[in-house]
Amino acid sequence: MTTTAPGRTVFDAVESEVRSYCRAWPVVFDRAEGSRIHDEQGRTYLDFFAGAGSLNYGHNNPVLKRALLDYIGRNGITHALDMSTTAKRAFLETFHSAVLEPRGLPYKVMFPGPTGTNAVEAALKLARKAKGREAVVSFTNAFHGMSLGSLAVTGNAFKRAGAGIPLVHTTPMPFDNYLNGRVPDFLWFERLLEDQGSGFNHPAAVIVETVQGEGGVNVARAEWLRGLADLCRRRDMLLIVDDVQMGCGRTGGFFSFEEAGIVPDIVTVSKSISGYGLPMALCLFKPELDLWEPGEHNGTFRGNNPAFVTATAALETYWRDGALREHTLVNGGRIERSLRELCAEHGRLGATYRGRGLVWGLEFTHKERAAAVCRKAFEHGLLIETSGPQDEVVKLLPPLTVTASELDEGLGILARAVRDTA
Amino acid sequence: MTTTAPGRTVFDAVESEVRSYCRAWPVVFDRAEGSRIHDEQGRTYLDFFAGAGSLNYGHNNPVLKRALLDYIGRNGITHALDMSTTAKRAFLETFHSAVLEPRGLPYKVMFPGPTGTNAVEAALKLARKAKGREAVVSFTNAFHGMSLGSLAVTGNAFKRAGAGIPLVHTTPMPFDNYLNGRVPDFLWFERLLEDQGSGFNHPAAVIVETVQGEGGVNVARAEWLRGLADLCRRRDMLLIVDDVQMGCGRTGGFFSFEEAGIVPDIVTVSKSISGYGLPMALCLFKPELDLWEPGEHNGTFRGNNPAFVTATAALETYWRDGALREHTLVNGGRIERSLRELCAEHGRLGATYRGRGLVWGLEFTHKERAAAVCRKAFEHGLLIETSGPQDEVVKLLPPLTVTASELDEGLGILARAVRDTA
Amino acid sequence: MTTTAPGRTVFDAVESEVRSYCRAWPVVFDRAEGSRIHDEQGRTYLDFFAGAGSLNYGHNNPVLKRALLDYIGRNGITHALDMSTTAKRAFLETFHSAVLEPRGLPYKVMFPGPTGTNAVEAALKLARKAKGREAVVSFTNAFHGMSLGSLAVTGNAFKRAGAGIPLVHTTPMPFDNYLNGRVPDFLWFERLLEDQGSGFNHPAAVIVETVQGEGGVNVARAEWLRGLADLCRRRDMLLIVDDVQMGCGRTGGFFSFEEAGIVPDIVTVSKSISGYGLPMALCLFKPELDLWEPGEHNGTFRGNNPAFVTATAALETYWRDGALREHTLVNGGRIERSLRELCAEHGRLGATYRGRGLVWGLEFTHKERAAAVCRKAFEHGLLIETSGPQDEVVKLLPPLTVTASELDEGLGILARAVRDTA
Amino acid sequence: MTTTAPGRTVFDAVESEVRSYCRAWPVVFDRAEGSRIHDEQGRTYLDFFAGAGSLNYGHNNPVLKRALLDYIGRNGITHALDMSTTAKRAFLETFHSAVLEPRGLPYKVMFPGPTGTNAVEAALKLARKAKGREAVVSFTNAFHGMSLGSLAVTGNAFKRAGAGIPLVHTTPMPFDNYLNGRVPDFLWFERLLEDQGSGFNHPAAVIVETVQGEGGVNVARAEWLRGLADLCRRRDMLLIVDDVQMGCGRTGGFFSFEEAGIVPDIVTVSKSISGYGLPMALCLFKPELDLWEPGEHNGTFRGNNPAFVTATAALETYWRDGALREHTLVNGGRIERSLRELCAEHGRLGATYRGRGLVWGLEFTHKERAAAVCRKAFEHGLLIETSGPQDEVVKLLPPLTVTASELDEGLGILARAVRDTA
Repeated sequence: MTTTAPGRTVFDAVESEVRSYCRAWPVVFDRAEGSRIHDEQGRTYLDFFAGAGSLNYGHNNPVLKRALLDYIGRNGITHALDMSTTAKRAFLETFHSAVLEPRGLPYKVMFPGPTGTNAVEAALKLARKAKGREAVVSFTNAFHGMSLGSLAVTGNAFKRAGAGIPLVHTTPMPFDNYLNGRVPDFLWFERLLEDQGSGFNHPAAVIVETVQGEGGVNVARAEWLRGLADLCRRRDMLLIVDDVQMGCGRTGGFFSFEEAGIVPDIVTVSKSISGYGLPMALCLFKPELDLWEPGEHNGTFRGNNPAFVTATAALETYWRDGALREHTLVNGGRIERSLRELCAEHGRLGATYRGRGLVWGLEFTHKERAAAVCRKAFEHGLLIETSGPQDEVVKLLPPLTVTASELDEGLGILARAVRDTA
Repeated sequence: MTTTAPGRTVFDAVESEVRSYCRAWPVVFDRAEGSRIHDEQGRTYLDFFAGAGSLNYGHNNPVLKRALLDYIGRNGITHALDMSTTAKRAFLETFHSAVLEPRGLPYKVMFPGPTGTNAVEAALKLARKAKGREAVVSFTNAFHGMSLGSLAVTGNAFKRAGAGIPLVHTTPMPFDNYLNGRVPDFLWFERLLEDQGSGFNHPAAVIVETVQGEGGVNVARAEWLRGLADLCRRRDMLLIVDDVQMGCGRTGGFFSFEEAGIVPDIVTVSKSISGYGLPMALCLFKPELDLWEPGEHNGTFRGNNPAFVTATAALETYWRDGALREHTLVNGGRIERSLRELCAEHGRLGATYRGRGLVWGLEFTHKERAAAVCRKAFEHGLLIETSGPQDEVVKLLPPLTVTASELDEGLGILARAVRDTA
Repeated sequence: MTTTAPGRTVFDAVESEVRSYCRAWPVVFDRAEGSRIHDEQGRTYLDFFAGAGSLNYGHNNPVLKRALLDYIGRNGITHALDMSTTAKRAFLETFHSAVLEPRGLPYKVMFPGPTGTNAVEAALKLARKAKGREAVVSFTNAFHGMSLGSLAVTGNAFKRAGAGIPLVHTTPMPFDNYLNGRVPDFLWFERLLEDQGSGFNHPAAVIVETVQGEGGVNVARAEWLRGLADLCRRRDMLLIVDDVQMGCGRTGGFFSFEEAGIVPDIVTVSKSISGYGLPMALCLFKPELDLWEPGEHNGTFRGNNPAFVTATAALETYWRDGALREHTLVNGGRIERSLRELCAEHGRLGATYRGRGLVWGLEFTHKERAAAVCRKAFEHGLLIETSGPQDEVVKLLPPLTVTASELDEGLGILARAVRDTA
Repeated sequence: MTTTAPGRTVFDAVESEVRSYCRAWPVVFDRAEGSRIHDEQGRTYLDFFAGAGSLNYGHNNPVLKRALLDYIGRNGITHALDMSTTAKRAFLETFHSAVLEPRGLPYKVMFPGPTGTNAVEAALKLARKAKGREAVVSFTNAFHGMSLGSLAVTGNAFKRAGAGIPLVHTTPMPFDNYLNGRVPDFLWFERLLEDQGSGFNHPAAVIVETVQGEGGVNVARAEWLRGLADLCRRRDMLLIVDDVQMGCGRTGGFFSFEEAGIVPDIVTVSKSISGYGLPMALCLFKPELDLWEPGEHNGTFRGNNPAFVTATAALETYWRDGALREHTLVNGGRIERSLRELCAEHGRLGATYRGRGLVWGLEFTHKERAAAVCRKAFEHGLLIETSGPQDEVVKLLPPLTVTASELDEGLGILARAVRDTA
């Protein structure tokens, strides 16, 4: 349909003020493939945002697209709630044989509603049910979602205020390096747990991201994660790893916690699990935690079968061997070198960097500069976004399938944008 | 079905015990079109369940399928968060011109996460923000979703217990006819509101379904809905109509509240809005309630563009004129006649019926008979499910696009199943 | 310290604005005995307020005073926490033999902190512990105290707002006759309990006053109380009667629930239990509910031994026979006749009355007239106060030891004040 | 009344199992004066427990006793809610001129219900009202009372569990030296406050004891208290000092926070404020915080006038000059020397000590030894009690009026008890 009014009119007139990304990138996007996205004027952008981590295999990945078109074409089941389907069976078999089994992970697979926050809600409900306690510990600058259960374990004060009710039953603990190494890991947490007079409600669970993407690309050390897993075990708390953004290969391995050698009790997966940007989410847990009664948690779109099809294709294509992992780590090294040079060039008052695999953050001393860099990058044809409590970190999330030359191109634009805003 | 077959093993071995529908229908579904769904053994079922109301235009509706294949084929944007896209623009324009404008509805459109519960969470947050109060009123036997905010306004005790924390800030009020006409409508509710000593926390909002699908196909009279809207207006409470299941034409008009002539402050829409069973949800509200700050509520899959494409196609196909509404009401009359006869045949100890449009419930005096009827119907090739607090109601939710002969066929199986279980 | 300013200066200068009764009666009181209280200017007032029910045996009752002076004089223990003392033993023995045993009441006696709200907090904690549930039902226009647990079951919106946090875990139900007989007793309450889909959190307990003193002298019928007790028994909820204001003979019998023939699971007692206006409170419960661990609930002044001494003297003096009960009922009849005449005189637009024993309320059609009547009465030498959600009820609470002539004198002033404000 | 059964029968038969101190001291007390208490068998004990700090001027102090007997004898008002009385005026004038004015403290005085927990409830309500926020910070091992508001800021897990509902809206922070000096003061607290992404609900107030009596005689350094006051000021949080146990001269000065030179926004006072062990409590706050509406918080026994009389006498007797303060500090030094020797004698594996003024704690490496020492001391005629999360600390709280020889006698018994349990 066409209106005579300029292109964005209907967005301004009809869409809610809650929209945000469209304000940073004031164009109308139309098509995309791989690492490139095109607006309706025909301009092309390199996408180092990748659907906030939902497009790890690039836009409209051709292998997945083929599987999807075939499935739709042959009238495969689209919507099935939790009925058994051939598409779900294929996914479960592939997920089990390509992901769980090779890693020795014993998880049962639950399909909650098809978004990250639905998976987190399911994880928290299950943990509370299993332990019979209400309290949950989260970490500073965590991001777990916008529904009330998930929002209560999310750090951002602005988003928390949106709840309209006091968010309770949760207590923040310092994420790795939050106090700049001035305090031994878990000193405070453990003291609260061991002291019968601490006033701390013993938690059912701890929920953690191994790398806090929205919180500013804060990277937990493997040693810290192991310490946390050990604390949970010793103090009878379940460990929930929210791998919604960092899972599906973003840090190299399929799960971001593999490198630390830990086995969380519960894992949430979403964003890139369908591989094609289609809504899908999983909640994984140890078999002894499969305490759900049939239907105790449900959701209309928990059986989004086209997503199962692309997810299966993605797993078959990228996770039957270690090639993608290798590619990710090599390219991660490429980004690291580039950021190191960039920071060196701009001296100690400019910026610092951090990251793992293909998620990297560039934090600026002058916090508002991060947004300026993103604006400049957009002008030069690169999509990147800020993160962190004050939007002080430029976050790089290229598709895992990014090529070396695309990476160099994007890093070049970034360097130019940094210089332009000096 | 056979249990020694390898086929289902992976569901038993890997999928969580939380799954439920697959227990009632122990086959593996593979393909579907229109009102028919096929299992992998080649058996065909008439589907009067329709994805719990998510498939109002039937499975894999050919017009929508064509639009979807075209869009995917041309590499249209799949995943876009809240970036502006041509697919979103088309949806907004069509939704405005085909749905909102003709009905004189002034709503702004918000895209929360793509499930009903995400839309309800957004609605509750917005209402609390707008009014600066925590309390919300819901109704007996309401169903609004499984995340913590939505679960707190859901009636089912079994599902509420799954929260793992006490669900507070909400108070149930009697749905229409809950007390069998022995109490004037809203007598208790209004008294609580007017009395400064009642101990009732003044609510920010009231959330209601016009027909409670999960709660047992309880149909609110238009007069009752008008009384509720009036009460909300007089007592400074926002009226939220949760039209997730009953919207998109299920009761005849696009919105289920049209018949009552009310204009809710906030409306949630999901299930059949994409028309193709793809995850999508809307939260609609009066412009003066658009108090969100950019990004105050978000969600990874709020920009599920393939769903926008099928949604637009569905609106263009079915909602530019009144044909579907007429078809729904005519077929609703056909069901009503059939159920009337069925109930008459089985006498006063057997069953009663109720419904609107194409949602109908058949309640049995012997509560367990409802499940038995559904089992029998499945044997005879018809998918129907129970609802109500004790699963005492057989619920009929055929696609709106069902043909007269399909309807007769299904009603015939139902009648036979009822007889078989007498 | 002396200031040159008039007598009340230090109150204005130093005491918090929270004070209230002193605003209605702007004099400085000095001495009192029986039904009379004297200000420092030597003016005498007839006291039909009686410490809001704390002075059932009159001010500085001479028998109790003698016992108190003796005890203090001989250096009897004043403060003893929950240590065993001879004064506590005497109280327990007398309370058991004069109150509990004759009524066949099996209660264990707990000494919480020495105020009504402390007793209510203990009762609610015990009920929740015993049942393992958080929810509690209270009634419209209930008053149970100002600490957070008690405030959550109190009806007054102004006082609830003072909490500074949302008051949750409690739901109000209609008190007897709240809906003017238009709804069968407990219809709504029972329906919520029996329906697994009602959304009502099953309560651990119901807390009720048999006569709501602060709420407007609302009198529950014995039949209604029996219905409530029966409902609690059938639906596994504990029945807590808050007899803080209505116990100790206010309605005739020692406990206000005796007349209804019910045996609550938990009873709170305070106000007149010491008999002398000294802080003291009891929480009584059936032996099987004595689930407390030693020290699980405590309080510094739970062993206020001078209060035990006057309490024992009061029980020995007034509760070894039925004379006081008889006196109360006879005088109650006297008040009733007087109010009947008064209301008849002023016609149907003037006032209605209600009460039991020696607690009576006179409700005015013009709500603000109640306060005017109290002001006038004060001018004429009578202390009476308003109650009810809008202070629309004049409340009469003379000491139980009031003489017939004092009663006539007070009722005469009341009648005059009503006429003066016509 | 006499029963043939042995003396303690009625306690066992009728009193609740919640009683605790009577289990440690299984005798029936009858009389007391000064530092001595007598059981009914005529045995005398030296009382270094002093009503858990409620008897700072000794049992039945003769000066206060005289004032009390006179007041009762002349029929002074006993119970007055918040009516103005001559006794209250005298108290306010004396409290102002003897306590507030000389210390330059600007406080308004509120009379909540007459117990510590009532005062704490009032303080928390006022702070939340003033700041419009729900959250409050308390400290590890804090003790503030047993009603729900106070219990939520109390540390002891056993007592918290008694609430029967999850205790929320509060977060514990480490008390001074909680982490043994391994973490800079307030590092974690300040970081949570300054970081918009910390997930910490910004508190309305911080509530603290300067010395945690129940928590194990943990003494906050003046420097730490100043740091806390400064943090509160900078971060817009109200500082509440709960001086219920440590006020009224226990640590030397009238208020325990004087030494640190801080002026809290709100102060709670109870226990020894009446001086005679009679129930009484105050909530003090800066004038700009006197935001109460009349009657917004109330309580039946907030006008316990006999307590006002003894309170006034106590202030006039002990707080018109610095003699008591001097006496307390000198005797504190005497205790300190004695404990130092005791600890030295028993070596590093035995015990450590700490304290201020006349509150001291002796912590044993073998935690259960503390209870054994108290039992032994009781056998030898000394009342002392344990405190701390595991009852691992012997707490010394002699009356402030203790004589040097009584002190030596008690310390001698303590030393003997320690030796006996070695």
